[in-house]
Amino acid sequence: MLCGKVQAMRLLNAFGTFYLLLGLQLTAGSRGLEFPSHDGKDRLINLSRKNFNRFLKKYDILVVFFTITRDPQNAYEENQWYLTEQMLELAAQITEREGVGFGVVNLQNDRKLAEKLGIFEAGAIYAYKSGHKVAYDGQRSTDFLVEFILELDEHPVEEINTKIEIQAFKRNELSKVIGYFESSSSAAFDDFVDAALDFQPLISFYAVFQKLLAKQLGLTEVNQIDFYEPYMKKSITMSGNLPHDNSDIEDFVSDHKRATLRKLRPINLYDIWEDDINDIHVVAFADESDPEGFEFLQLLKEIAQLHTDDPNLSIVWIDPDDFALLHDYWERTFGVDLSEPQIGVVNVTDADSVWMARRKSRLPTLAELEKWISEVLSGKINTENDDDDYNLDDDVDDDDTEGESNDRNDVDIDDDFDEEDEEEKEEKASAVVEEKKEIRKLSRRSKLDL
Amino acid sequence: MLCGKVQAMRLLNAFGTFYLLLGLQLTAGSRGLEFPSHDGKDRLINLSRKNFNRFLKKYDILVVFFTITRDPQNAYEENQWYLTEQMLELAAQITEREGVGFGVVNLQNDRKLAEKLGIFEAGAIYAYKSGHKVAYDGQRSTDFLVEFILELDEHPVEEINTKIEIQAFKRNELSKVIGYFESSSSAAFDDFVDAALDFQPLISFYAVFQKLLAKQLGLTEVNQIDFYEPYMKKSITMSGNLPHDNSDIEDFVSDHKRATLRKLRPINLYDIWEDDINDIHVVAFADESDPEGFEFLQLLKEIAQLHTDDPNLSIVWIDPDDFALLHDYWERTFGVDLSEPQIGVVNVTDADSVWMARRKSRLPTLAELEKWISEVLSGKINTENDDDDYNLDDDVDDDDTEGESNDRNDVDIDDDFDEEDEEEKEEKASAVVEEKKEIRKLSRRSKLDL
Repeated sequence: MLCGKVQAMRLLNAFGTFYLLLGLQLTAGSRGLEFPSHDGKDRLINLSRKNFNRFLKKYDILVVFFTITRDPQNAYEENQWYLTEQMLELAAQITEREGVGFGVVNLQNDRKLAEKLGIFEAGAIYAYKSGHKVAYDGQRSTDFLVEFILELDEHPVEEINTKIEIQAFKRNELSKVIGYFESSSSAAFDDFVDAALDFQPLISFYAVFQKLLAKQLGLTEVNQIDFYEPYMKKSITMSGNLPHDNSDIEDFVSDHKRATLRKLRPINLYDIWEDDINDIHVVAFADESDPEGFEFLQLLKEIAQLHTDDPNLSIVWIDPDDFALLHDYWERTFGVDLSEPQIGVVNVTDADSVWMARRKSRLPTLAELEKWISEVLSGKINTENDDDDYNLDDDVDDDDTEGESNDRNDVDIDDDFDEEDEEEKEEKASAVVEEKKEIRKLSRRSKLDL
Repeated sequence: MLCGKVQAMRLLNAFGTFYLLLGLQLTAGSRGLEFPSHDGKDRLINLSRKNFNRFLKKYDILVVFFTITRDPQNAYEENQWYLTEQMLELAAQITEREGVGFGVVNLQNDRKLAEKLGIFEAGAIYAYKSGHKVAYDGQRSTDFLVEFILELDEHPVEEINTKIEIQAFKRNELSKVIGYFESSSSAAFDDFVDAALDFQPLISFYAVFQKLLAKQLGLTEVNQIDFYEPYMKKSITMSGNLPHDNSDIEDFVSDHKRATLRKLRPINLYDIWEDDINDIHVVAFADESDPEGFEFLQLLKEIAQLHTDDPNLSIVWIDPDDFALLHDYWERTFGVDLSEPQIGVVNVTDADSVWMARRKSRLPTLAELEKWISEVLSGKINTENDDDDYNLDDDVDDDDTEGESNDRNDVDIDDDFDEEDEEEKEEKASAVVEEKKEIRKLSRRSKLDL
């Protein structure tokens, strides 16, 4: 297709901006994929009680990072702040044209503002939009933070107007809510939108206005609202008199928010991980793009469908492809091979875990998986068989492998885990007497993702 | 579910490693999501002609970064190298236990090694595995590089052994190759595996050994090999006598490699962007998780199915959710609103573009899209109506909006684009006389993704 001169040029142009050798600096090449870096302009606002409302009004979305006064002598803290600041500044730069502002609140200096906002965690990020606040509990890196903000910037309710859009709705594997309304100007729809703003963007809200489409979606009455848990074929219809009001919708969604099978995503990983049940997570690793991983995932979906009414079961599904950075950490900490599907129980207080034994070269059957799950729920399989629930002498890498645990090769937990153990004991002892409203410092590591 | 003491502890434990105020430093909280940072150990090997083969033998996968001598006075270059080194060191640390080694080749100091390896681009990254080399043409950040390496580390051919695994195969929307073989010890299968190693991990290879499953996949003869272009229902069967040998398979796959509809992914973005047709890309933005974006994507798939035999058409589909960092850059450079589906023509030499006019609140019909595509292919719609193909006086933001281009609001291309234009002219003038084997410097920006 290309010949002679043109081809030579294309070949040279093919490699992005580049420099020829011999000191001659030339710029050329394929344009269209220039990743941004911070332009140097400071966009972070120092928010205080005095100016908070003004900036809240000024921006469509105000993203707020909550911090405490740093010790300038502490190099680690200073570096963490530098990374966090860079993340926030770049995100502010990228979203500036969308009407998004970024600010910082010092929880110690502005105690009253903290109390007004109800935020007491240093390191937390909240986005304020249309009188609603939404926590950003995703990975601390610019791309995911920006993805979150851009999704938050969209209208909170998607309208379904065609049959193909019904397909799009059905394919969405997040928790989702759908309502059938008279029109987009009905009061019932306004309440629905208002409720949606509390859950956007982690739970999707849809509306349908056409009777025929509504019927295909199983919505028979005007103002009916249904909730779909991920991977469930059947929806849950909201009970009570129609139309539903805003706060009832919020309660309804909150009640069903925690799914029986939840996918960990970079945008919600802390949100899910911190929502454990009795300090444990049932964790399943399955690479959906791998045939065996896909097959295992179908089993997990069956299990979830069988147990959807059990509030004590919520399986966290992790596709290892989504978390390449954690691959080695998880393999070492959990002692599992992530190139194969795995299911286990993880104690989130110490990352101690026990994994279902894998028979060579085959997946468990549904019955085997069912048995294992029931033994987890009954407590027969657990990570703490040899110690009390809150035994402070618990060692991080206690290798209590009772039940069906598998071989753990290569579990060389870092030494500093043991050091931290000492501190952990103190913390646990003091934790029970701490006030809930104490300012706490989250340390979701701002990852330097180069 | 939780009460009293336990709940208080869980609440405090719920926020990752944290520090209480008042100088008392405590560590606790949810464990299991600790993102790694570089441990400080140098893992990058200085590769030379003398030691290259030794390290090639030592590691399952040897990842090589190609560089040239830096000017220590050039702060920009030094910083770029620092970021690149950090990316490589962290990737090396994460993949160390998988038997992956990382090295650097200085193309100037080791000209002979460069010639032997056939690499002349500074900034390039190649992975060597089992006597094959694969370029890493993805985003310059640790997570995607590690994802690429981990996928490269798997067996290059996935076996399909069950009906559910056929579903997994069908769901895979990448280019894929499937072969039906006697067994995994047949010579024909060995050739298939060898060919797969040249395309792993960007093209998926599958094998089936059971007659019944093969039949369901449309494979009727032993040793038959089929290629599936993304989004195509029908496969292309490799012609020629059976069994096929390694190099014939490689030619077959290479011939069909460029799909009519290609999804830009962080792991392959440069690979696709640099594979333009006559300096242009037809680019479509569609957010698959959005009902309208999903519907537009179905249209694109129909177009692709209709045009699959046209080598002059290859649509690059970009889901904006995958590239949050580029959102603002693309909106500014292309003058489009990425919250709605868009299709346009982008000239990759200067990022000049022209976009299909959008009728308010509805997607184009298939017929409208067909007409637009045919006008692009005929050249009636193009970005360069007012200048020659290689007119060196071309301005970056020439706003030649003939044809069906839409309004371009807010196309404020940065000033430095114009500065670079001067250099670009020189480059273009010299490009045609440059030797192809000259060492070139890629400058895929190592993004500091905080």
